[in-house]
Amino acid sequence: MVTTVSTNWVKDMLFDAELSGHHLLMDLDTQVGGEDKGPRPKPLILAALSGCSGMDVVSILEKMRVKDYQFKIDVAAESTAEHPITYHTINVDFHFEGSDLPNDKVYRAVELSTTKYCGVMAMLRKAAQINVKVYVNGLEVTP
Amino acid sequence: MVTTVSTNWVKDMLFDAELSGHHLLMDLDTQVGGEDKGPRPKPLILAALSGCSGMDVVSILEKMRVKDYQFKIDVAAESTAEHPITYHTINVDFHFEGSDLPNDKVYRAVELSTTKYCGVMAMLRKAAQINVKVYVNGLEVTP
Repeated sequence: MVTTVSTNWVKDMLFDAELSGHHLLMDLDTQVGGEDKGPRPKPLILAALSGCSGMDVVSILEKMRVKDYQFKIDVAAESTAEHPITYHTINVDFHFEGSDLPNDKVYRAVELSTTKYCGVMAMLRKAAQINVKVYVNGLEVTP
Repeated sequence: MVTTVSTNWVKDMLFDAELSGHHLLMDLDTQVGGEDKGPRPKPLILAALSGCSGMDVVSILEKMRVKDYQFKIDVAAESTAEHPITYHTINVDFHFEGSDLPNDKVYRAVELSTTKYCGVMAMLRKAAQINVKVYVNGLEVTP
């Protein structure tokens, strides 16, 4: 399968990417020559990581018949000082809130995504140290 | 430096990522449980690649005093068949249009970005074969 993205330069640091039939503006902030009309490019890979794994987790929990929860993912990436500036460490925290959540199933769903299914995670693991933590109602869950 | 992205699950396969002060919706298409309210997560890394390198190239060409051109980047990625589904090959074609473009400077600007400056490229090179081509007015430019 081939996935295509076509990106047009608009002006200055503004680029318009077309992907999956949607348009996404990318820009720099005003202090470095942009007009902040869209996000910076590099953090988009962190958004991709969260969305890819998040969709896995929701699907797996649905199959496990886990319901009635809220869910967010916080990603924090540390960059190298030298060019090319890359993320050398990426911390991914999965936060679940719910009154009747089975910790073991939640942990297992995240584990299945982050070790087996999430393609973005698999790619980024080759370039960065990725640390995954799971929290249920504010408390870290461990195996 | 730490870069943070916070992503909230909205419903079904819809996620809302906040990055650089912007909101980005990610969703699946309607055939697989989504409502297509935003792009798929994985192609976002291809958009990031194009934006990251594109901004480099525009900056470098500006320093080289190259002006009056149009510029787009086409990315085509081939996926593995097995889980985790990753991009094993990424083809990145830089297309420039302009009546007075110096081929050597254009080629050099792309080369500097793709080998030295673009952090997204540096990360993805560790996970995939990346092939870069440069075209000026429809003709491929080589060193």
